[in-house]
Order: sequence, then structure tokens, then C-alpha cells
Amino acid sequence: MQGSTLNTLSAAGAAAAIRNGEITSEALVSDCLARIAEREEVVHAWVDFDAEYPLAEARAADALVRAGAELGPLHGVPVGLKDIIDTADLPTGNGSRLFAGRRPVHDATCVRLLRAAGAIILGKTVTTEFALSSARATTNPHNPAHTPGGSSSGSAASVADFMVPLSIGSQTGGSVIRPASFCGVYGYKPTYGSISRHGVLIISRFLDHLGIYGRTLEDLALFGDTLMVHDHGDRDMRFHPGCQLLDALSEPNAATPPRLAFVKGPAWAHAEDHLTPVFDAYVEQFGGAVQEVELGGIFESALDAQATIMNASLWANLGEYCENHADKIDAETVTRVNAGREVLAGDFIHASELAGSLNHALDGLFEHYDALITAAAPGEAPLGLTSTGNAAFQRIWTVTGVPTLTLPKLEGPNAMPIGVQVIGKRGRDADLFRAARWLDGAGA
Amino acid sequence: MQGSTLNTLSAAGAAAAIRNGEITSEALVSDCLARIAEREEVVHAWVDFDAEYPLAEARAADALVRAGAELGPLHGVPVGLKDIIDTADLPTGNGSRLFAGRRPVHDATCVRLLRAAGAIILGKTVTTEFALSSARATTNPHNPAHTPGGSSSGSAASVADFMVPLSIGSQTGGSVIRPASFCGVYGYKPTYGSISRHGVLIISRFLDHLGIYGRTLEDLALFGDTLMVHDHGDRDMRFHPGCQLLDALSEPNAATPPRLAFVKGPAWAHAEDHLTPVFDAYVEQFGGAVQEVELGGIFESALDAQATIMNASLWANLGEYCENHADKIDAETVTRVNAGREVLAGDFIHASELAGSLNHALDGLFEHYDALITAAAPGEAPLGLTSTGNAAFQRIWTVTGVPTLTLPKLEGPNAMPIGVQVIGKRGRDADLFRAARWLDGAGA
Repeated sequence: MQGSTLNTLSAAGAAAAIRNGEITSEALVSDCLARIAEREEVVHAWVDFDAEYPLAEARAADALVRAGAELGPLHGVPVGLKDIIDTADLPTGNGSRLFAGRRPVHDATCVRLLRAAGAIILGKTVTTEFALSSARATTNPHNPAHTPGGSSSGSAASVADFMVPLSIGSQTGGSVIRPASFCGVYGYKPTYGSISRHGVLIISRFLDHLGIYGRTLEDLALFGDTLMVHDHGDRDMRFHPGCQLLDALSEPNAATPPRLAFVKGPAWAHAEDHLTPVFDAYVEQFGGAVQEVELGGIFESALDAQATIMNASLWANLGEYCENHADKIDAETVTRVNAGREVLAGDFIHASELAGSLNHALDGLFEHYDALITAAAPGEAPLGLTSTGNAAFQRIWTVTGVPTLTLPKLEGPNAMPIGVQVIGKRGRDADLFRAARWLDGAGA
Repeated sequence: MQGSTLNTLSAAGAAAAIRNGEITSEALVSDCLARIAEREEVVHAWVDFDAEYPLAEARAADALVRAGAELGPLHGVPVGLKDIIDTADLPTGNGSRLFAGRRPVHDATCVRLLRAAGAIILGKTVTTEFALSSARATTNPHNPAHTPGGSSSGSAASVADFMVPLSIGSQTGGSVIRPASFCGVYGYKPTYGSISRHGVLIISRFLDHLGIYGRTLEDLALFGDTLMVHDHGDRDMRFHPGCQLLDALSEPNAATPPRLAFVKGPAWAHAEDHLTPVFDAYVEQFGGAVQEVELGGIFESALDAQATIMNASLWANLGEYCENHADKIDAETVTRVNAGREVLAGDFIHASELAGSLNHALDGLFEHYDALITAAAPGEAPLGLTSTGNAAFQRIWTVTGVPTLTLPKLEGPNAMPIGVQVIGKRGRDADLFRAARWLDGAGA
């Protein structure tokens, strides 16, 4: 398997090959670095890149293999980290001029888990400023004139462009699933409280989720199992976030297909013209196996509730930076953060209550369906790099904290990817993966 | 044991006597009703009282004893319920003219748990309006010219006056512990999220706790074990709220006394003149076994944080009533609720964050101490019935959600009771009871 294309291996395949001695981590990392050297000038997925650092880590990982040491599930596999995730040995700039070159003292908890699993931190991936909407230079690997989406722009683009098999992003509005849809990779945002945010820039404690990217569903499961571990450092964590996702995927196929509902909801008002025919055709192939279901009227307020919570949180968490350092922050960000200043606490509380009521309504739906499907974005990645696109298709599933993933199954009129978003019940991520496996194997 | 003083039995003693056939539930309830008939004109602890209702329940309970049925831990024992707790067979008026005579369709979860444990719902106890500060007619059983405290005025006074052995109250600011201190009974507010609030008036989802009253520590443990059960109907519940409090109390005494710290903190600025000498004398009896410890500077903001969260919540939850029905609501309540209208979401979020930081600071303290002790109130119950007293001594422990209980161990200059408040680590309620048992047996 040695050669110049190790960078195209899946994470699971690469981990197995390293463990078996078929390839070295150094060879894998070298191929990833070669791919980056070849493409980074166009894709701009990475910040603060130092090729020597992951190579040294890879050589150390190979030495452990040769020594017969016990190896973690990601031993020798390179990973990219959104640049809001603290690393003690690489700067963490939060996508901002204000924090450029910042050196955290400690690794974030997710980084500690990755190192314990044997992963190699390849580098930090580009994020919009403060993981909000102000775009950076990253382009879409399928066409550099189109946005990769955001805020996890570099995390999605680097995986899509075969620069690294796995990466971590984050979602407060739609920042994991939308870039995955635009870049044509698998993306997964677990149930709220499943991956520790300790050591990660806080945008909104109530909405922030870490999420992950890969090029196969199995890779998401492998990566998720590594990261979904309880941590007292994040006080909103679930006590038992682990879901044995790999086990769920390796079960024998169930005799009956999952019960799936196709939902549109208020996000669909934001759909591009090409979305409905593409998605209708996708759903039609399943015949009656996928039913279209209406989300209740309560969901009409879901986008507003997410916006209220997010805006208030932005001001609470970033207002001080915008007040004291506006010269080092993009005007778009300052305007957005300042918009949260006047949100009333009563409205914030009502929005939080609505999120609870939405979850209650979803619980009722999940008594009848194993998973919901909808589009992962309003359509193909839009032309242009100044906007990262519309988050309406992700925000309902962020404010409700339900697990959601996207499968790169569809294409728009410009041959750019569109994801099929699969949504599960809160805390039932393994069921989500079972349903996603069925869809992933169903062609189209 | 039959006689005219069964109403003075502890709940544990009464339950054992009923189980053993030494007394009947009907005799117990009759003695409680006789005490109420004798004293209610002065104490005013009950609303919507119907003597036939608990007597019928008691006779049914006695029939089960005679039939040899399996009996719950509170079989035949009467209980009082703060009138914000829904009961399907008694009105629930929330202490308000607006809701006077309201008939809920369902029992609150805690009522269902009580019925399953065999308890008799004696009646609903007087609360201030909406469990806030606007006082009702209840007086202090030790001296009717003094307040019983509030908002759980009737819950505390009825237990103190031997009208009922157990009752449920609630605390959003200081409404369980302060009335217990003023009335000279044992009061316990478990860790946040330990007793379901499903079917209870919401004042603030973030601060509301149900709490309990009894005349012995063992009774609090028996009652707490019955009520601390997970319920999906309250989405802020801990998953495993049960703490086996009775088991903790029945363990052999540890060889060494608990590690206790005496704390004053910002509440002590509200102390009456008589409090410091009374409490200093209490602490001195333990010699070096109880050390005075300073709470960190971060606690200076704790009372403000509790007020911010509470005020914002009052507006969010009660603002609609005050806007549309101000003619049926006390002016004091309307003023208080309206004060929350202008609270900004950013300030609310910062207050919530501070509560987390306070808990983190307390975690550090609980590495060195099993429990903290402080006064349960600023002093004796104040003279007069228009104010229920100052909540400063309870609010820090409400906003942090730590378990706290009060022991009726001290007396002020007018021979009115003052409680010793014992505070435990969040989720470690059994450790709190172990420390409280030691203090309760230590005299003074």
C-alpha cells in the first residue's frame, strides 16, 4: 500500500494498515503533506502550518509500533483541528487578528483524547472569525470560485481535498453540517453535550457543539467513539455520551429498513430553486419507504429562537472584545455581536423554553420514525467567497441539540455536492448511524 | 401508643407504628386534625381544608394494613403540600387571587410519588403569592406576632406546630431554609434537580427547588428518599438523584468527626446584631474541630447573580399574568415581576456563568471539608407579618444548587429559634446528612 496516494485512505483503513505494519504513519503524513503542498495555494484550508511538527509526531508513533506498544484506535492517523480548539504546542488564533499567534497553555480535552488515541495533530484548520460568518480565504475543493461553507471552512475543505482523513469542526448555528454539504464530505454533529468543549472558544454555551468530518460513515463512527467521553471540564456534558457507533455500524443489517420521514420545515423557505427537484427525486427512489411528514406549527419559531439565544450569547461572550478591540475585529463581526446587546433576558428564557418544547415535539415524532431526513443545505455551495452561505437548514437541529449527520449523496446543476441530512433522537446517536448506514448503502 | 398526642410522632415513628398495627392512620390523622382545629385560628397554615378528605384516605390506608397489603415507606402518614403543587383532587391556588379555586387535572410528580409511598395528602399549606414575597396570614407557631418566614410559610409552620409530621415547600431564593429556621424545624433543600418540579408552579426553571420539612433529621431522610426519583417531566433533573439518605444516617458513626468549615460570606452583612455572638458560641463548643474559612471574593457577586436570574425569570414566567390581570395580583408582586422586564440577556448569561464559577470554587472547598456550616437566617424571625424576612442567607446556596439543610439548634434573645445551616457538595447529599447527623448529636 506504500505509494503516493496514502492521503486518500480512510482513517479506519489507515489505522489498520499502520497497526499491521503495512504502512508507516510517517509515509501517510508525508503524503498528506504532499497533497497540502500541491493544493493549499488554491484551497487555503490551514493556518500556522509547520510540516516538521506532524512528521516528528508520526516518527514517534512509528517507533511505538515497532516497539510493540499498545496502540490507540487512531494510532498514527493525522487529524485537522478547527483553529478555535486549544493546542499547547500550536498557536490557536480563533480565526481572528485579535488572537493571532495566541499560545494556549493547555490542550483542549478533545485534543487530549486524540493524543491518547494515538492521533497525529496535523495542524489547525481555517475558521471564520470567532467561528461566526466573516469568511477567510478557504475555497471549495470542487470549485475554488465557490464557498466551502463555514465557519468550519478549513476542516471540511481539508478532508474533502484528501489533505487529511479526519477533522474537528464546531456548530453553533450551522457550521459543521453546511460545510460538509458544500464540500461533499461526511459530517456529524452529535447530541448536545457529547464532545467536551473544554479548551474551545465559547460562542454560546447553550448552542455550541463540536462536530467531525470524514470521508466515510465508518470514519465518523471511529472518530466519534474516540471523542464522545464525559469530561467534568464542560458542565453541560451528558454523563454517558458514548454511543458505541462503530458497534452499531458493524451489526448485521436489520431485516426491515429503518422508518424514515422526510421533513421540510421552515428552513425549506430558504431553499434554492434546484433543491426541491433534486431532493424529491432522491426521496422518490425509496418508494413508500420514506414518508413526507409536516413539522408542527411550533417549528415556525425555531429559527427565531436559535437566533435569540445565539445573539444574546455572542454579546455575552464576545461583547468585551468588540467594545475594547474593534480595530482588530472585522466590521461584520462587530455588527453581529453588538446586535445581541439589547436582547432581553425574558426573550432569551422564552427561546430556551421553546427549544425544550421543540424537543418534546420531536420525541413524539421519533416514536414513529427512527430518523428524519432533509437537505443539509439550501442547495449547492453558492458562488463567491465573501459569504459562507445560509445556515437555515442546520439551525433547528442545533437549537434542539439532536444528533445530525450529512451524507454526500446528491449533486446540483453545477455538479457541486449537496448533502442528505439525517437527524436522530437526542441521545440516540447509534440509531442515527444505523439509519444512515442504510441510506448510505442505498445508492443514489 | 393510641392517644391524643399522635400528632407529635415523627413520620418514621408513625409509619412504623402503623405498619406494626400499634396505631391506625385514621387515629393519627384525627389527632393532626384535632391539633389543626385547636390552633389554626392562630397559625393559619392551611388553605382549602376539607377534613373528610384525609380521613377517607386514612381509612383506606388502614384497610390495606388489615388486608396485609405491601405497604410503602410512608404508608398512612399525613403530609402537607405547599399550594403551588398540583393535586388532582384538591384546588391549587398558587397563593394568588388570580388562581383561587384552580383545579389541576393531574397530580404533580411529587404527589404521585407520595401516593405511591402510601402517604395521606392532609391538605395544601399556605404560600405567599406565587411563592414570592407578598405575605399571607400564617403566623410563627412560637409567637404569632412574628413571621413564619416564606414563601413556604404554611409548610414550615404546620410541621413546627405539630399539625403534620412532614411537608413540602419550595425555594427559588430562600423559601425552604428560612421558614425552617424561623419556625424551629428541620428543613432540607436537596441538590438542584433532585425532586421533580413537574406539576409545580414555575418561578424560575434555573433556581426552583422543591424542599422538605420534618421534626427530625431521620424524617427528612425518609421523606427525601421517597421524593428524589428521576422524572422525564422535569428536564433539569439529575439522572440519579436518589442518595440513600436513610442508609447514610443508619451507618455506624465514623471514627473521626466530619471536616467542617464555618463560613460567613456576603450574607453575613445582613446579620442581626444578635446573630454573631449566638453563632460564635455555637462554633466555639467544637474547639478546633470547626474552622472558620473565608469564601473567595467571587462570592461577593453571588447575591446579585441570584437576583438577576430570579428577576429575569419572574418576568418570563409571571409577566403575562401581571400585564393582563394586575387587578387580581398584589401590587408588591406586580412591582417585583415588572422589575425583571428590562434585564438584559447578556447579564442573565453572565449571572448563569457566575453560578458555574461559584460551584467550581465550592468544589475546591469541598476537597478539604465534608460540609460547610453557617447561619440559616439573619437571626430570629422578625416581628410583624407583612415581611417574610431577608433571604440573603439562603440565596447563595440556591443559585449554586448545592444541597443545604437546617438544624433547629439555636435560640435568639427572644427565645425564638435560629437554624444551623449545613451545606454540602452538589450531588453529595448523603455526605451532607452524615455531617448533619454528627452536628445534630453534638448537643448545643
